[in-house]
Amino acid sequence: AIKEELDEFRRLFLELHPADQTEVFLRLEESERKRVYEFLSPEEFAEIFEGLEIDEQKAIALELNDYYAAEMFNKMYADDVADFFGELQQEHVEDILQAMNKEDADDVQELLMYEDNTAGSIMTKEFISVKASHTVAEVIELLREKGPDAETIYYLYVVDEAGKLVGVTSIRDLITSMSDETIETFMSSRVVSVHVKTDQEEVAQLIQKYDFLAAPVVTDHNMLVGIVTVDDVIDVLEQEATEDVGEITASRGSTDVTITSIQAAKRRAPWIVLLMFFGLGTAEVIGIFEETLESVVLLAAFIPMVMGSAGNTGTQSLAVAVRALATGTLEKRGFWKTVVREFSTGLLIGVTCGVVIMLLLGLLYGDLFLGFIVGLSIMVSLGVASVIGTTIPLIINKLNMDPAIASGPFITTLSDVISLMIYFTIATSFLQHV
Amino acid sequence: AIKEELDEFRRLFLELHPADQTEVFLRLEESERKRVYEFLSPEEFAEIFEGLEIDEQKAIALELNDYYAAEMFNKMYADDVADFFGELQQEHVEDILQAMNKEDADDVQELLMYEDNTAGSIMTKEFISVKASHTVAEVIELLREKGPDAETIYYLYVVDEAGKLVGVTSIRDLITSMSDETIETFMSSRVVSVHVKTDQEEVAQLIQKYDFLAAPVVTDHNMLVGIVTVDDVIDVLEQEATEDVGEITASRGSTDVTITSIQAAKRRAPWIVLLMFFGLGTAEVIGIFEETLESVVLLAAFIPMVMGSAGNTGTQSLAVAVRALATGTLEKRGFWKTVVREFSTGLLIGVTCGVVIMLLLGLLYGDLFLGFIVGLSIMVSLGVASVIGTTIPLIINKLNMDPAIASGPFITTLSDVISLMIYFTIATSFLQHV
Repeated sequence: AIKEELDEFRRLFLELHPADQTEVFLRLEESERKRVYEFLSPEEFAEIFEGLEIDEQKAIALELNDYYAAEMFNKMYADDVADFFGELQQEHVEDILQAMNKEDADDVQELLMYEDNTAGSIMTKEFISVKASHTVAEVIELLREKGPDAETIYYLYVVDEAGKLVGVTSIRDLITSMSDETIETFMSSRVVSVHVKTDQEEVAQLIQKYDFLAAPVVTDHNMLVGIVTVDDVIDVLEQEATEDVGEITASRGSTDVTITSIQAAKRRAPWIVLLMFFGLGTAEVIGIFEETLESVVLLAAFIPMVMGSAGNTGTQSLAVAVRALATGTLEKRGFWKTVVREFSTGLLIGVTCGVVIMLLLGLLYGDLFLGFIVGLSIMVSLGVASVIGTTIPLIINKLNMDPAIASGPFITTLSDVISLMIYFTIATSFLQHV
Repeated sequence: AIKEELDEFRRLFLELHPADQTEVFLRLEESERKRVYEFLSPEEFAEIFEGLEIDEQKAIALELNDYYAAEMFNKMYADDVADFFGELQQEHVEDILQAMNKEDADDVQELLMYEDNTAGSIMTKEFISVKASHTVAEVIELLREKGPDAETIYYLYVVDEAGKLVGVTSIRDLITSMSDETIETFMSSRVVSVHVKTDQEEVAQLIQKYDFLAAPVVTDHNMLVGIVTVDDVIDVLEQEATEDVGEITASRGSTDVTITSIQAAKRRAPWIVLLMFFGLGTAEVIGIFEETLESVVLLAAFIPMVMGSAGNTGTQSLAVAVRALATGTLEKRGFWKTVVREFSTGLLIGVTCGVVIMLLLGLLYGDLFLGFIVGLSIMVSLGVASVIGTTIPLIINKLNMDPAIASGPFITTLSDVISLMIYFTIATSFLQHV
């Protein structure tokens, strides 16, 4: 009866899509999870394990015995194993690699050599390569044999004797050709490929541009070493979008809602504290102009408005720059053209806002002079803020530095200090002439 | 000789990938473009046209004669034609549909009926469906015939006599099966499908979760009407990421660097002006507390710091909320759990910042009292700001309203007003007791 129950559980559970199996698995208690390891083979469990987040994988790996774990890693796609190992300690990794099949372990070790965020680090080794002299019938025979293990069989990459990439064809072409034709007769010899060291964001842009399902990855000598598939690219795009939002809001790496508030506070507080220190700069600026402020206390009332408008305009320009970098349109447009466009935009918005506020303050407070000072300050500040918002992320990108430095709050803080100086300088010089 | 030149041009040009043909085409002058229309058949030009942006398509369509245009639309994928027609005026669309083949025109018209941003609006009609009773050999014959026109041949959808979706199989399964087996014997009858009215963002999340290359789209009665392919999903994700950034920075629909500065200013200035009006609120708050400010002018110096810290914390919480909505993790976590997590995080950051600034101002200015007022204000403001930053986008999402209302600057403006009131209320009540 136990045997029957087990079979019934296996039948129902394995009928689920692996992504759903993972969801069910995550809801189980530890004791129930232990039974899953007994019921499922390492190969079957590998599909569940691949769907877990890295943090979850770490916790679950501790629950598996060494043999089961090694067998599971043998059956996983090498790129997924490498992703996981990349987060473990070196010695732990070596122990596991020892326990794995030599062939599978070699694939994983190769992937571990590539730097994070490169094509090499996200590529998979399970692709299908054929020879130009193969006939359609021979290739179909090969697919029958190797198809189940490959990550995609949609594209067939053609290599020469040395392993150099010389062409590409698709299963669509294969099926619409006669069985005795050789691959050579219909393959395309213009293959778009990426280098192992190409940045993953560039790979994603390439796959998106050509609507590819996968892109071949080559070394310096055009040797085919792997492929990047479209599902990995989607994950890259998702990750880059999260990073973009993180950069704009100084909450990099902590937009995950599943972490605890203590973890979130630990990651986010340093940014807020740092920005608060920079905020001392604005206090200093206001301190310098204390005399001006004492003579017209009402000037303080418009500090937030001048600062805020400049900050908002700077943030808009930042959004333009971040998206232009992410989608690759910046390269098409050029640096200076983009900066000039943003400066003109900022000035135009500044003139609009300046005139509106001048008239409004004149009407509301009957104080044309105050309206003039605030309006003029907004005009100048907005032009400057749009240049700051555009150039800083672009320059940082050119210098290959960590773009987190150019995050939204930093741009805002910088534009705060500058717009305050503009405001008080204008106010002070006009007060002296009255 | 002219004939030879033409042939040579055609040979070189058509060898390029369509995405590259589009790039070359965009660099041509009008007179050169006219020659392209002469040299290329409507079918060949269709591939270039599909790669253009909507604005570019509008301009180019005007250069084509009616017959050439109608032929080109016949040959394009129906979803691409529908995307383009969606941007044209109704009467213009009807004229073109009249000139097209009835069958192709019907496909396009069907797609035009679906609302924007639904599965129906982004799906393609060019998919392959088979019967469960078909043998592998019959299906391969069908693929030979229909394969070249289909958008993807990777998945084969199985429908019954009425056209209802009953199963799915892949070309991988087809190739590894014997040629006399029927589809029924190896197809999967658990098909994950989406409804025509499903939101495109949900479709993207589904395809991402299951690592699909396409998802079938069905009507109320499970009738298969189209498929959404992974390349469309990538475009959706890109578009959603741009919208997220636009929302956070109040620059929705204007992060495109290719528009002129006048166009950009027209789209962005209204936001800045509107936010400036809200900024009058902060001026009002400060005006109310003018008396307090006159007695301690130095209080003005810390307005930017208190407001800025609260604004930054609010923006971090906004980033968490926006990403949780985009990646679907919010549904998994639940509304209250997320709000409570953010409130605790904000309070923790607030306590940290408050204590730091209290000590710092005590040391720097030798003024423990000022340090106490600023520190306490930051503590309270940060907790409140994190709740504002999380709840407002979530509530707006629940009400199915336009999330642009919850954009970053609005959150910041709201948190500005509230943190100023907290700051001056604390300052005023303590000054009275001194």
